[in-house]
Amino acid sequence: MSTGAVANWGLMGSRERIVQPQTFTFAEGSDAFVLESGSRLGPITVAYETYGVLNRERSNAILIAHALTGDHHAAGKNHPAEKAPGWWDDLIGPGKPFDTNRFFIICSNVLGGCRGTTGPASINPETGRPYGMDFPVYTIRDMVRVQKALIDHLGIERLLLVAGGSMGGMQVLEWGVTYPDMMDGLLPIATAGRMTAMGIAFNEIMRRTIMLDPAWNGGDYAPGKGPAQGLAIARMLGMVTYRSDELFTARFGRRMTNNQPKAYFDFDNRFEIESYLHYQGDKLVQRFDANTYMYLCKAMDLLDVGRGRGGYEKALASIAARTLFIGVDSDWIYPPVYMIEMAEIMKKAGCDAGYWELKSPHGHDAFLVEFERMRPVVASFVNGIADMRQV
Amino acid sequence: MSTGAVANWGLMGSRERIVQPQTFTFAEGSDAFVLESGSRLGPITVAYETYGVLNRERSNAILIAHALTGDHHAAGKNHPAEKAPGWWDDLIGPGKPFDTNRFFIICSNVLGGCRGTTGPASINPETGRPYGMDFPVYTIRDMVRVQKALIDHLGIERLLLVAGGSMGGMQVLEWGVTYPDMMDGLLPIATAGRMTAMGIAFNEIMRRTIMLDPAWNGGDYAPGKGPAQGLAIARMLGMVTYRSDELFTARFGRRMTNNQPKAYFDFDNRFEIESYLHYQGDKLVQRFDANTYMYLCKAMDLLDVGRGRGGYEKALASIAARTLFIGVDSDWIYPPVYMIEMAEIMKKAGCDAGYWELKSPHGHDAFLVEFERMRPVVASFVNGIADMRQV
Repeated sequence: MSTGAVANWGLMGSRERIVQPQTFTFAEGSDAFVLESGSRLGPITVAYETYGVLNRERSNAILIAHALTGDHHAAGKNHPAEKAPGWWDDLIGPGKPFDTNRFFIICSNVLGGCRGTTGPASINPETGRPYGMDFPVYTIRDMVRVQKALIDHLGIERLLLVAGGSMGGMQVLEWGVTYPDMMDGLLPIATAGRMTAMGIAFNEIMRRTIMLDPAWNGGDYAPGKGPAQGLAIARMLGMVTYRSDELFTARFGRRMTNNQPKAYFDFDNRFEIESYLHYQGDKLVQRFDANTYMYLCKAMDLLDVGRGRGGYEKALASIAARTLFIGVDSDWIYPPVYMIEMAEIMKKAGCDAGYWELKSPHGHDAFLVEFERMRPVVASFVNGIADMRQV
Repeated sequence: MSTGAVANWGLMGSRERIVQPQTFTFAEGSDAFVLESGSRLGPITVAYETYGVLNRERSNAILIAHALTGDHHAAGKNHPAEKAPGWWDDLIGPGKPFDTNRFFIICSNVLGGCRGTTGPASINPETGRPYGMDFPVYTIRDMVRVQKALIDHLGIERLLLVAGGSMGGMQVLEWGVTYPDMMDGLLPIATAGRMTAMGIAFNEIMRRTIMLDPAWNGGDYAPGKGPAQGLAIARMLGMVTYRSDELFTARFGRRMTNNQPKAYFDFDNRFEIESYLHYQGDKLVQRFDANTYMYLCKAMDLLDVGRGRGGYEKALASIAARTLFIGVDSDWIYPPVYMIEMAEIMKKAGCDAGYWELKSPHGHDAFLVEFERMRPVVASFVNGIADMRQV
């Protein structure tokens, strides 16, 4: 099987890697998708991209899962004028660890996202208006079940690997527990198998900040409008948790935007770290929906791979795939200790699990930054799986 | 010298330690106080409490400095029905490390506070309305200079010791650098000598959250009204930074307030950590002013003991008092590394400086919790200073 988009990618070559997003719609009519909560949702459209060519045996597929504000545009460009390529372009492409000369890479916008897949900002067919806060609560497990529908649609029975960082890593782990026989490898990065109380705390504060913005209006706002300030502040907070004290000190220190001595005492004179965060906050507002942000945070809060499966240890022990956890030493929002704990639980149960620590001052976001250091480790793991599978 | 309140404390004995807050007003009329910024402010009323009796030589005075949301009520009770005693009552009292049988303890509400000392919530004599955002920006150094005026008023020429945690510790360090000949000891706890970029980041997010609340209204609100929701959310965020992942996991884990299986997917079903933070946020609103919160955070942002003094190292090296830094191993918002750095800078310069690390899962707030562990260390340091001074 080789879709148009796949051929497109293949034909364009590595210098101009143009990729066309695709969509897949299912759960239509009476065939609605039943969420974990019991709520029914449909139809569901999934936006996705693929890179490389699916081989005849359909044995070279790798699924990449994105993080909170990420999307299905993981590599290449959608058009030549695009400023920057997809978010993991440093790892996905010809000769890169996720080698498009060897593998068929799939990345989809998650269920409940706002970048093409059905979510709170989508039109509710029953009302003709955006779902808003009427969208049902969904979980990481639901996201994975929707990805499974896409994989089925692509005619793939078994994945070589599922990989992703942060919320992407949560999907990786849910894949491993929900469909243990469907992949040879798992690569969860800077993530958790159950959300910590600290993580829930930050998510709740971000949600409340969005809800405090009068423009939120109970979640009922016109597309493109909405609580810009609330979402921007939530993003500012998110950004702080994704970085480290060490990085901020080195990069911004105590420098101010206005260094006139008298300006030091101006209430509104910003330190450079403040300007940076405001810039990041405002930037997210341009491309992200506030209700969706809240639902995605809620989905992360509800993450516990052991829920309804006899507990955390038992669920992790049921993973059949070779698993490499990658943690970041300076990541304080998804502390390495919990990834080490998962690897230990799996090893004790006889699973093929390992842990590698990325040394970086970049904090949680190191998985989106430290490509030089990650590349050999990821390449070795991916190729090891592929060699085992004789791809 | 022995004021009424001091006698009161002495007479009531240790079982019913009742203390009366006092006030001192200065900078009246044309004698306005000139802030670091050059702005003039007056009159300034300072609310304070004292515990124990000032000796004839006036040589047994200890100044305690409070943290962001603290106040001058550091020990005892203001009336018998009061629920809990002052915030450092476990360390201040007869036979305690700050032994009121031996020492005369002073604690004042900081300049720009909202618990009795002149601040943004006070009435601006020029307008007859609360200062609000018309209050001038002040610094930790300004707070210390106002405390100096109080110390002068009490007829004390030299303090035995200045002690405090968090924002209190910042005042301790500014005391040591601003008035190096005025004390024998300094006890800065869980604090910094210059605000980190990470600390500034959190403070800015808290300020913006307050300002996002429509009830903030540019800082113009009636006393007792104001941005309750914004301040509550800011406090929730503050609380998260004062604690640790380890503590939250042990205390709240992933427990929900409604444990019915179906309630798991309710958007509004709170995890216990969320309920706890909401409770803390709402509680602060009852006793704290939002504009004041913003100004105090700004004062912390502006903290750099080296500013205008030839730099950080030179300023710290100018401290003459024996100094013991206490850091908390799990404190990630005021990381021990910066306190260790300050102690090293001082030692290299020939200062009498040491560092002790409090091992605790309580994070930054350990200085308000871990009294059993702190007591012997604080007592030993305080008594060492007092013995040296032959008090």
